[in-house]
Amino acid sequence: MSSKFEARDPNYEQRVRDSFSRQGAMRSMQISIEDIGLGVITLRLPHQQDYTQQHGFMHAGVVSTAMDSACGYAAFTLMNDDAAVLAVEFKADFFAPAQGEYFLMQASVVKSGKTISVSKCDAFAIEGDTKKHIAQMTATIMAVYDKAGVVS
Amino acid sequence: MSSKFEARDPNYEQRVRDSFSRQGAMRSMQISIEDIGLGVITLRLPHQQDYTQQHGFMHAGVVSTAMDSACGYAAFTLMNDDAAVLAVEFKADFFAPAQGEYFLMQASVVKSGKTISVSKCDAFAIEGDTKKHIAQMTATIMAVYDKAGVVS
Amino acid sequence: MSSKFEARDPNYEQRVRDSFSRQGAMRSMQISIEDIGLGVITLRLPHQQDYTQQHGFMHAGVVSTAMDSACGYAAFTLMNDDAAVLAVEFKADFFAPAQGEYFLMQASVVKSGKTISVSKCDAFAIEGDTKKHIAQMTATIMAVYDKAGVVS
Amino acid sequence: MSSKFEARDPNYEQRVRDSFSRQGAMRSMQISIEDIGLGVITLRLPHQQDYTQQHGFMHAGVVSTAMDSACGYAAFTLMNDDAAVLAVEFKADFFAPAQGEYFLMQASVVKSGKTISVSKCDAFAIEGDTKKHIAQMTATIMAVYDKAGVVS
Repeated sequence: MSSKFEARDPNYEQRVRDSFSRQGAMRSMQISIEDIGLGVITLRLPHQQDYTQQHGFMHAGVVSTAMDSACGYAAFTLMNDDAAVLAVEFKADFFAPAQGEYFLMQASVVKSGKTISVSKCDAFAIEGDTKKHIAQMTATIMAVYDKAGVVS
Repeated sequence: MSSKFEARDPNYEQRVRDSFSRQGAMRSMQISIEDIGLGVITLRLPHQQDYTQQHGFMHAGVVSTAMDSACGYAAFTLMNDDAAVLAVEFKADFFAPAQGEYFLMQASVVKSGKTISVSKCDAFAIEGDTKKHIAQMTATIMAVYDKAGVVS
Repeated sequence: MSSKFEARDPNYEQRVRDSFSRQGAMRSMQISIEDIGLGVITLRLPHQQDYTQQHGFMHAGVVSTAMDSACGYAAFTLMNDDAAVLAVEFKADFFAPAQGEYFLMQASVVKSGKTISVSKCDAFAIEGDTKKHIAQMTATIMAVYDKAGVVS
Repeated sequence: MSSKFEARDPNYEQRVRDSFSRQGAMRSMQISIEDIGLGVITLRLPHQQDYTQQHGFMHAGVVSTAMDSACGYAAFTLMNDDAAVLAVEFKADFFAPAQGEYFLMQASVVKSGKTISVSKCDAFAIEGDTKKHIAQMTATIMAVYDKAGVVS
């Protein structure tokens, strides 16, 4: 996939996959990497009864967890190999209930800075042949250089 | 607990508990109701290896799921008994890693309207005697009157 | 301009221009309509010494005022002719100082509902031949049917 | 005014007033400093026909400009004397039309970090003896150490 961004770390894909595989939350929620490129990532979340809200749709918080990870890892593809990625804040909008067989979270970097990056993510519900835009997120991501990952 | 709000439904506590108990996501993440009042709710989230991010702290998305539920149910305490509650959008800020034995999400209603309400939530990490403010959320909540829960 | 949206009011352009012309804030800040279509609008803001921040760039709040208007009027193009438009909330991200000869705010509707719509806006600084992406906004807009314009 | 914060710069009040006085936007909109303390500030905005929206109330963007300044300067009181303050992003919620004789923006710092701070602001409309909560803001503020004030 071509990109408007340049890689600071040519090994970015493996670095993202290694970090992703250490997230207990991704494993428990069965969120997986569908596609990675420089400054972009798509995650996949299957419908699961274990993560529903009171009407049987996927919980907005779970959709947000997947969008948050997508935003963070899209920014992480562009970082140096010794940086840790940290969510400073995010904002999510919900357009429709998260009803579908599975969900795709398509994130890309809007602004990549040395310290601060901004990513956006669109969430789609897939049901048979239909792909419905159900939510979006904007996230501010910080590159930090210590393990504790504290915003300071 | 006294309140600046008046109950539209005197049975609000049972209504909240019934709805909460139908959320698969709350059960899976072991999120429980610590306290309810008119326009306020406190939820509790234990630390769980299953919901960590790559550094072993609780995932920001999971903390957000609990804050989102707290914001929604705080607004739900003030609604009519035939209303469904729906997140229109939320915004979360993260101040420190979600590191602790357990977490308390203290939400309250800032503005209660017929259609649109705004709630806020503060998330605290509890470790022994210390209580640290790790995150906050502001959420726009909509009261809807059909099962599908679609923002329209 | 073709559009994915259908007009509820074929006279939407005149309706937007009439409403826009009643905003004292637009006049004082010399914000003008550059282009309108169904679900989209572009506003123009010239650089003005009267609206700078402490470093001589345009104030982020003034850029936000223009983006807020653009988001609201993009949604307003799709509303019925008796609806008033109201900002429920917005979120703005700033990528670079608002430095330029003039600024273009390009807004479009992401989700159009009967009551709630969501618009986004990108702000660009124009300096000679360069067009730089300096800010973005996401806004939740409500259609209301009384003059007072109160979210309820 | 006592404070939970410690001053990095004992001369913070003069530093804020000097910076504030260089903002053309504050002068044009007649926004003034009502009160300053460590980590807190209150700004005052009079009603002005020049800054109304289409219904004759103050424009949400103008209220946001004042809230943005309040959030930034609240954080600025806690910074080193060589730091510049920069809005990374903000989120505003509007509860009621900005109708009143004047408006007070009461901002305080929620989290003060070396690089990133988070402030919040409540906006009140004053009309005779009544003080109505009309809006709120949460803002992420960055301390930068170069004149250009670019988030990087």
